[in-house]
Amino acid sequence: MMKLGVCYYPEHWPTAMWATDAAEMKSIGLSLVRIGEFAWSRLEPKEGTFDFSWLDEVIEILYGAGLQFILGTPSATPPRWMLDKFPDLLAWDEGGRPREFGSRRHYCHSHEAYMHVAAEMAERLAKRYGNHPALYAWQTDNEYGCHDTVRSYSPLATIAFQNWLSNKYKTITELNQRWGNVFWSMEYDSFDQIGLPNLTVTEPNPSHKLDFYRFCSDQVVVWNQAQIAAIRPHTDKPIFHNYMGRITEFDHFKLGEDMEIATWDTYPLGFLEDRSDRDESFRHKYQYTGDPDFQAFHHDLYRAVGKGRWGIMEQQPGPVNWAPYNPAPARGMVRVWTLEAMAHGAEFVAYFRWRQLPFAQEQMHSALKRPDNRPSEVLDEIRLLNEDLKKYSSSENHKAQVGLIFDYESQWAWEVQPQGQDFDYFRLVYDFYCGLRQLGLDVDILPPDGQSVDNYAVVLVPGLFSLNDQLMEALSSFTGELLLGPRTNIKTKDFHIHPDSVSQLMQIDLKLDQVETLRPTETRNVEGIGTFHSWIESLQVNGESVPPLLYKNDRTYLGGWPDKETMISVLRNCAERAGIAIEDQEDGVRLRNGFVVGYGEASFELSK
Amino acid sequence: MMKLGVCYYPEHWPTAMWATDAAEMKSIGLSLVRIGEFAWSRLEPKEGTFDFSWLDEVIEILYGAGLQFILGTPSATPPRWMLDKFPDLLAWDEGGRPREFGSRRHYCHSHEAYMHVAAEMAERLAKRYGNHPALYAWQTDNEYGCHDTVRSYSPLATIAFQNWLSNKYKTITELNQRWGNVFWSMEYDSFDQIGLPNLTVTEPNPSHKLDFYRFCSDQVVVWNQAQIAAIRPHTDKPIFHNYMGRITEFDHFKLGEDMEIATWDTYPLGFLEDRSDRDESFRHKYQYTGDPDFQAFHHDLYRAVGKGRWGIMEQQPGPVNWAPYNPAPARGMVRVWTLEAMAHGAEFVAYFRWRQLPFAQEQMHSALKRPDNRPSEVLDEIRLLNEDLKKYSSSENHKAQVGLIFDYESQWAWEVQPQGQDFDYFRLVYDFYCGLRQLGLDVDILPPDGQSVDNYAVVLVPGLFSLNDQLMEALSSFTGELLLGPRTNIKTKDFHIHPDSVSQLMQIDLKLDQVETLRPTETRNVEGIGTFHSWIESLQVNGESVPPLLYKNDRTYLGGWPDKETMISVLRNCAERAGIAIEDQEDGVRLRNGFVVGYGEASFELSK
Amino acid sequence: MMKLGVCYYPEHWPTAMWATDAAEMKSIGLSLVRIGEFAWSRLEPKEGTFDFSWLDEVIEILYGAGLQFILGTPSATPPRWMLDKFPDLLAWDEGGRPREFGSRRHYCHSHEAYMHVAAEMAERLAKRYGNHPALYAWQTDNEYGCHDTVRSYSPLATIAFQNWLSNKYKTITELNQRWGNVFWSMEYDSFDQIGLPNLTVTEPNPSHKLDFYRFCSDQVVVWNQAQIAAIRPHTDKPIFHNYMGRITEFDHFKLGEDMEIATWDTYPLGFLEDRSDRDESFRHKYQYTGDPDFQAFHHDLYRAVGKGRWGIMEQQPGPVNWAPYNPAPARGMVRVWTLEAMAHGAEFVAYFRWRQLPFAQEQMHSALKRPDNRPSEVLDEIRLLNEDLKKYSSSENHKAQVGLIFDYESQWAWEVQPQGQDFDYFRLVYDFYCGLRQLGLDVDILPPDGQSVDNYAVVLVPGLFSLNDQLMEALSSFTGELLLGPRTNIKTKDFHIHPDSVSQLMQIDLKLDQVETLRPTETRNVEGIGTFHSWIESLQVNGESVPPLLYKNDRTYLGGWPDKETMISVLRNCAERAGIAIEDQEDGVRLRNGFVVGYGEASFELSK
Repeated sequence: MMKLGVCYYPEHWPTAMWATDAAEMKSIGLSLVRIGEFAWSRLEPKEGTFDFSWLDEVIEILYGAGLQFILGTPSATPPRWMLDKFPDLLAWDEGGRPREFGSRRHYCHSHEAYMHVAAEMAERLAKRYGNHPALYAWQTDNEYGCHDTVRSYSPLATIAFQNWLSNKYKTITELNQRWGNVFWSMEYDSFDQIGLPNLTVTEPNPSHKLDFYRFCSDQVVVWNQAQIAAIRPHTDKPIFHNYMGRITEFDHFKLGEDMEIATWDTYPLGFLEDRSDRDESFRHKYQYTGDPDFQAFHHDLYRAVGKGRWGIMEQQPGPVNWAPYNPAPARGMVRVWTLEAMAHGAEFVAYFRWRQLPFAQEQMHSALKRPDNRPSEVLDEIRLLNEDLKKYSSSENHKAQVGLIFDYESQWAWEVQPQGQDFDYFRLVYDFYCGLRQLGLDVDILPPDGQSVDNYAVVLVPGLFSLNDQLMEALSSFTGELLLGPRTNIKTKDFHIHPDSVSQLMQIDLKLDQVETLRPTETRNVEGIGTFHSWIESLQVNGESVPPLLYKNDRTYLGGWPDKETMISVLRNCAERAGIAIEDQEDGVRLRNGFVVGYGEASFELSK
Repeated sequence: MMKLGVCYYPEHWPTAMWATDAAEMKSIGLSLVRIGEFAWSRLEPKEGTFDFSWLDEVIEILYGAGLQFILGTPSATPPRWMLDKFPDLLAWDEGGRPREFGSRRHYCHSHEAYMHVAAEMAERLAKRYGNHPALYAWQTDNEYGCHDTVRSYSPLATIAFQNWLSNKYKTITELNQRWGNVFWSMEYDSFDQIGLPNLTVTEPNPSHKLDFYRFCSDQVVVWNQAQIAAIRPHTDKPIFHNYMGRITEFDHFKLGEDMEIATWDTYPLGFLEDRSDRDESFRHKYQYTGDPDFQAFHHDLYRAVGKGRWGIMEQQPGPVNWAPYNPAPARGMVRVWTLEAMAHGAEFVAYFRWRQLPFAQEQMHSALKRPDNRPSEVLDEIRLLNEDLKKYSSSENHKAQVGLIFDYESQWAWEVQPQGQDFDYFRLVYDFYCGLRQLGLDVDILPPDGQSVDNYAVVLVPGLFSLNDQLMEALSSFTGELLLGPRTNIKTKDFHIHPDSVSQLMQIDLKLDQVETLRPTETRNVEGIGTFHSWIESLQVNGESVPPLLYKNDRTYLGGWPDKETMISVLRNCAERAGIAIEDQEDGVRLRNGFVVGYGEASFELSK
Repeated sequence: MMKLGVCYYPEHWPTAMWATDAAEMKSIGLSLVRIGEFAWSRLEPKEGTFDFSWLDEVIEILYGAGLQFILGTPSATPPRWMLDKFPDLLAWDEGGRPREFGSRRHYCHSHEAYMHVAAEMAERLAKRYGNHPALYAWQTDNEYGCHDTVRSYSPLATIAFQNWLSNKYKTITELNQRWGNVFWSMEYDSFDQIGLPNLTVTEPNPSHKLDFYRFCSDQVVVWNQAQIAAIRPHTDKPIFHNYMGRITEFDHFKLGEDMEIATWDTYPLGFLEDRSDRDESFRHKYQYTGDPDFQAFHHDLYRAVGKGRWGIMEQQPGPVNWAPYNPAPARGMVRVWTLEAMAHGAEFVAYFRWRQLPFAQEQMHSALKRPDNRPSEVLDEIRLLNEDLKKYSSSENHKAQVGLIFDYESQWAWEVQPQGQDFDYFRLVYDFYCGLRQLGLDVDILPPDGQSVDNYAVVLVPGLFSLNDQLMEALSSFTGELLLGPRTNIKTKDFHIHPDSVSQLMQIDLKLDQVETLRPTETRNVEGIGTFHSWIESLQVNGESVPPLLYKNDRTYLGGWPDKETMISVLRNCAERAGIAIEDQEDGVRLRNGFVVGYGEASFELSK
């Protein structure tokens, strides 16, 4: 049965409240409590002076109340004294300025010494609590990438990037050649001449920029591995990180390889307000429920990152404080969101946070309890959920028939070179996802490693900038319906134009002649196919111009970004060819694993 | 009788013109002439080399012509040599860059040495001219806060802020506790670790930021006091500063405590273009007259700042040069603006400036005379005003029946934490003010000290972030109609959520459960009350949810930002309960102290 | 006969391809090939180590194939080692940050040592290839001003500016007086105190800013002269620079004085997308053809810069990579653009570039050949052009009857002081140009030196901020129809308000009383004249107010910015008075020298 949990910050509250808090958590049906992340200044108030006594006490109280705990490492918030120890700790922004102390995530991932200090703290925690009977799992750090913290333009990052390049290319000649630095006389004489690709006169070399983005992602992976290496020897509990919505600057699949579970922090109303491309009418319609596909997309994405195991570490319980505008969820919507996670196979859902804090940055973020300890109205929904979860559960082994490949590197590639200003890889993939959901289809999101494509009747690959060898091989031998989307494999890994793009996969002599990008207000109608916007390819087959939708056996190539209607038509056709059952969905209603999820009316219904 | 005056820069013109200028000023009915501010490079061309001879001559000419003069201290424009003396003189912007020499206001309020040098210059002027028979008043500096100059992020400001904090909190433990720095491990070990709240990774602690804003305001007050202390011993004439429209970064009430009069610089068309939240249709309608309430609001505000005594130091006479677009006022409008000031009790109105300057930054700013010394057409209006002012005058002791509290600190608090992106305290208070004016009511604006509330039949307190003890006491014992607006007293002084907000004042068990903020395109209808936008509170009374408009005896609580119609309805109800006579106003017509002021047709009519 | 050419980068391609490339160029009718610019890292891979062998080989191959070459100096792309030699090489942006290596144009025009090194490289090339029989012409550097590279705010620029000012004003007293630095006590004691006019607290002195803009333009001229001086002794071939569209930060007329031909780089779709003030409906209509007047305007402008001789060095052949959105030109449009250039008297049109490069920044820029060496579809158009050009040619001595003065300094002046936020000199002049073209009139654009005005029946002078003595004299004695536009001569050269503006020219006592600027959504109707927007002057003649359209003999003064209809009416009237034949043009059709150019239907027709 899916567990319910909560995020708790005992260090913010009087000791006297801890026991009653724990008892009340238990009484309303919660079983998991996350603690510890952000608490560094209380665990090590001065360098070398540690105090775990309060944490010991909290853990015993939780344990005594029959609760399990998730322990977070506090590395997202090095205390102020860490800056005295490491004056170069801070990340630098793209404009070349240090990002100062005074909030959180104020460290550069290329600061190795701090990475080690943070790992030592993780090790201390692991040694002390790694075998505690109430320990449920570990969380490393908090929300990598939040507040734009993956890409640092600091002097330390510059040196680390030069080393990364030296490891990759071995010789500067090799780098010059593969970046194409003969263009504009950009050739380097040595690795230590290479700067970061910010503040250049006009755009830097795309190969340069993409390598920097790869490096930045790798630095997060290395950073995280340091903590895992410190924790693992001292515990047999799973380790995870809590990801965020639509953070794409690091490769979650790579990070996820080192951990047993994936979790994410979901704030449906905050995301609709702050991280959505939706238009005004859509935002109006769903302002109190959230985008009906956005949560599901991330559930499916992070299930893949977690190799099947995932949970929600932070679930929005009411209005948040950080979006431009912050309405309250519709009554019952927290329950719907929770059950939707269950339908997507979540192992647990934890609410953020136990009690609204009356001070500091997040004081306007709602919680399960008011600042004065009165219950918030969402507690009623949690009580109902206890009953719900006894009745329903999602088969853990449920597998969709449609696989959709998501590739972080492609996001970076098209950020580097959008060609049309508003081209965004996430949005493109998300458009395909929403189209599939409109047809009532379950979707599994797949990493770009090709390993699992054979499990699916249909596989979609939109906008993947450069297919790696394994994926190419897997797709080549794939026997289901394959839909290759616009812009797929049009580049080599080195960011050169690919001489052949998808000819091999399509098994025809397909040439991409040229590409057009259109202003957001323009569309292009192609007779017999439908309407495109944003991106349209001019294609040749055997030397003849052909329209941008090609079928060959069980393979489809779509050479443009279709509007909604055309997208549905292409996907419907694809599903029908694959023999998959389609069930068109009404506005605001979505299916997952047989469960009906209602966003429009904020209702959760069951057809199982 | 209200006096008329003009701003004059003799240093810009040949000596030969001074006498004819003075004679002409007198002949058209002007009696006051402001001089001297900005003239430092002519008063002290090199460090320690002073030249007051030209100023002596100007003053004698004005005196001889029967004019009085206002003398401004030139501290807003330290000459270039001052930067050689004080290389760290400049303020720094929020992005961490010095704000360079080459215009004006190029100093940091935390530069104590310059503050003393500026005070010494003021003292020199005071000693020389403080007892001159033609002296009317003193002006300190010029338009504090103009060009965003209150908040400096310089190294000197950092040190001064640390000292200010040390004085306020005494111990770092106290600061950590009251800021809630346990959150995100933001705890400091000493005051000298505390930076300014700019360039942080994500938002800084609101307590940190609000304290910085308080500090910045205090620095202006201290700065101004240095000049007052230098001038006062050598004169018995009043001292004032010339404030601007909608500058809220320093507490004008605190500054005003040290001075006898308040003045302000009013540019109705510039303000509508540059500092207004009005929509396009409103801007179209009033493009040649200005916003019918904006001037009145500031007249009433600065009358309070001047403890009843106030004047207009700079009145727009034609097109200005500094707004994004600069149309000319409708014919007759300068007269209307002048008489409106009289209706609000102004002691004098001075025009900016005598003659349009053909060079430098303000060459496109119109004046009473053209650059070639021809008269501008506004002189006709000034001649008419001489006749007007013989006929009309506003009772100095006129007191409105409605008091509206304005609190600068609340402006800063909601800048720090708007919760909804477009929430602005000034706009909220101004909305109430405009509603009252729509009902034909005179309004007195009141400082947040509670001292005078008992003089009013109705008192309004919208959006005041934290009621201080005196105000709480005054409002508690207030026996008139009290209207508490949205967001009032929801915080403690330390920027924590207030446990009780307005329960005590409303004499009911009122709880603020949660707050919602809405996108600008959204509204919320509440049955039986009306329509809200931007901000809506969820309230409980005795544990039951109640709609966001509550009455208890003679007290009203409005827990949201009403639209125009709902605002009028709430205010009408309030006024009727208080037994105040209401007179609904037509578009563009306003009443003040029995005078009818016409913005729509640019006419000034009298009903007295 | 107009020649066709192409831009070629042999250093990007295997040596083995050079001969076949050359042969194919020849076979499709090209005769000119530009090479060399950007190739510094291959000509001097290390400081002092030169390699011209590959270039020798390329040139011999071209020569052998019967092609002529244009040789570009590579100074726009100093190699990375140049930064080790000159660590202060980089320009600084307006925000005070160095503009880093990693793309192109990464040098400050005030770096004299690099200027000399670049000139030495030019000299080396000139000595080696200056008398080669296949040499057609020289190109200096590449696209001065592209990527906002004229105005550098570096420490070197500061010193150079101080020297420039010292040369101009001789004494600091003179500068203070002519800048009007008494205003706001901005007086300087010495030239070395003067900073650049960026990052000031509020706007800097307009005289200061205009002088800085003049200085920046002069630095480009001096820079270019260094290369000309290095090349000239070693060659008898013409030298030119390739200008861009709507780059106005340097005075092209001054630069052009030193060279025999002018060329420019024309990207009609890129310009419509990126550098146009046109509204959405216009952009929609012409998205695949480009603005029907934009190319013509620059043809006429650069013909004047080239003193009659001009060419197109880079012609868009398909989608580009650098505009926000990049559609493909309509079929046939490259032919139309080419023939239009012919109609305007171009000596040659060269396409950018030979083959699309599969790597680096411009990999998505189309070319005559695809990256895999397949021909692009535009080759068909070039083949047709070979036939066209045998049939048609434009008389080289064709002279229009209408002259329109364009003055770069005026662009800078109104950037410094727009008075209405959207006032733009280029746009104003362009509006007049478009109006003339609407009436079917050929236009010659004229420099502001007055030398050739007598050749025209009508001369237009819109918005020229300050008439110099020669131009004033020429216009005073001009006997054709003279139309003076809004804002003309309202300033002196020193950026003071002109006491007399156009009275002398209009031969009436005309006074400019005041100016109004209007929001973009506002217009003003003046009875009997028409409708104005943006800018309206209040005028007096003999002390009486008059409407802003005055005729006196054969002179017209228009004191406002007319809307399209009013513009046409004023211009029609002007042309009729001059007795010039008018032929109203339909949408998208334009006349030039008897040729009909069709943008609407992308057709090129001939009436000759």
